[in-house]
Amino acid sequence: MLLFIGLGLHSEDNLTLEGFKLSKEADKIYLDTYTSYMPGLSIERLEKLLGKKITPLKRKNLESDDIYKIIEEAKRKLVVLLVPGDPFIATTHIQIRLEAERRGVKTRVIHSASIYSAIPGEIGLSSYKFGRSVTITFPYENYISETPYDVIKGNKARGLHTLLLLDINIEKEKFLTIRDAVEILMAIEERRRENVVNEKTLVVGVARLGSPDATIKADFMKNIINYDFGGPPYTMIIPGKLHFMEAEALVILAKAPCIILNSTEH
Amino acid sequence: MLLFIGLGLHSEDNLTLEGFKLSKEADKIYLDTYTSYMPGLSIERLEKLLGKKITPLKRKNLESDDIYKIIEEAKRKLVVLLVPGDPFIATTHIQIRLEAERRGVKTRVIHSASIYSAIPGEIGLSSYKFGRSVTITFPYENYISETPYDVIKGNKARGLHTLLLLDINIEKEKFLTIRDAVEILMAIEERRRENVVNEKTLVVGVARLGSPDATIKADFMKNIINYDFGGPPYTMIIPGKLHFMEAEALVILAKAPCIILNSTEH
Repeated sequence: MLLFIGLGLHSEDNLTLEGFKLSKEADKIYLDTYTSYMPGLSIERLEKLLGKKITPLKRKNLESDDIYKIIEEAKRKLVVLLVPGDPFIATTHIQIRLEAERRGVKTRVIHSASIYSAIPGEIGLSSYKFGRSVTITFPYENYISETPYDVIKGNKARGLHTLLLLDINIEKEKFLTIRDAVEILMAIEERRRENVVNEKTLVVGVARLGSPDATIKADFMKNIINYDFGGPPYTMIIPGKLHFMEAEALVILAKAPCIILNSTEH
Repeated sequence: MLLFIGLGLHSEDNLTLEGFKLSKEADKIYLDTYTSYMPGLSIERLEKLLGKKITPLKRKNLESDDIYKIIEEAKRKLVVLLVPGDPFIATTHIQIRLEAERRGVKTRVIHSASIYSAIPGEIGLSSYKFGRSVTITFPYENYISETPYDVIKGNKARGLHTLLLLDINIEKEKFLTIRDAVEILMAIEERRRENVVNEKTLVVGVARLGSPDATIKADFMKNIINYDFGGPPYTMIIPGKLHFMEAEALVILAKAPCIILNSTEH
């Protein structure tokens, strides 16, 4: 059997009791170290906690034939794949699960916290007012993907909030920052000129969500680029139409400028 | 300090290690028994696990002046409010948190699994292809809210999937079923005739997600209403445009009819 167990947002302490018990019963434990970054996670502490050796998997393991060996192993053994966040936000894990099922290997998922469900409440925006989400990726040579701009535009037209995940490259230890993300959106605006974002667009920046020292700050684009969010990972939200209660929440929970209270709907 | 601690999807075993440790340190523990339903949760087992007495809160406690007493209590003590799922999906909890912060009481959230992040991967649909979500509520006397119909219509027009939460009334032990939800959408279609749903619309029904006996089944509306999903709680997804890998995932993970593989995009 192949068990996908979510590790949650910050550290090994975000494993659920069920995930903890099942990992202790496992014959073999792998850890995805490639799709997300958990600032408080230590493999050594996790090994000590579970009383087992953990085999870290990199991109080259997860997206190559190595994964077939793991699936075959799961035919005879209880194999656990530990995944940051809630498993399957990344397509890679869905592909591995489907391949396992195709080969007759039973699979199960133990869920944990994810940025998707954690963000709305942390900043006080209603979860049902979020439109589709999107990742802002690193520019590739001179190419910048405009998908985030289009997604924000579509959500904004319907008054909806947009959750923006910011790209990471674990192996190169590179993290797209809030500042990078704002500059990318401004560069696309410069080219497209459809007034989707401007200097006065309200943005919520979030760093290290789920950790005791998480940083959350809402401000206008021209100001947020100078704010010090500390270490990664980062997430960004561009609010749509704000209900008064949401605006008040942004002021209280995300230290947004009070002036945003003037332009809300009741 | 007022700590909101998520309980996850199914049972007390979905508490995180961090939530478990902090609950054990608490001076007082309350449990929200009103906003969601966790089929595997037992207050007695939870009390035994934490070694503490737990005070259950009903709607009348959570939405009345009782909550001010709890907030005042949190000025001097470590008060924990245990919440099914990931806290703050319900507006009630955001209001309590804001009121606490206004009164100078420090708050913190310990996240756990939520239906929002768990659904996409369990059925193999890409999380970034979900549009806004919506709750299908119980008809009130003869009135049926058409909001879900409009949300599905808007998402469908942009090829996006829709997550539908199905209403519950814990105190009356009433749960809107997949069948009820399909019949409500069909009744709205009958009136509006905008061809948003019909007998051949593909639907994914999910019952008891996160439990070992979760039921997941995809089928056309005319068939799904006769499928036996077992006990609550229920969730429903109406897929938008399917990528081939998503359709294949629905066939493998949700036993969708193979014919859906014919109408996908590559």
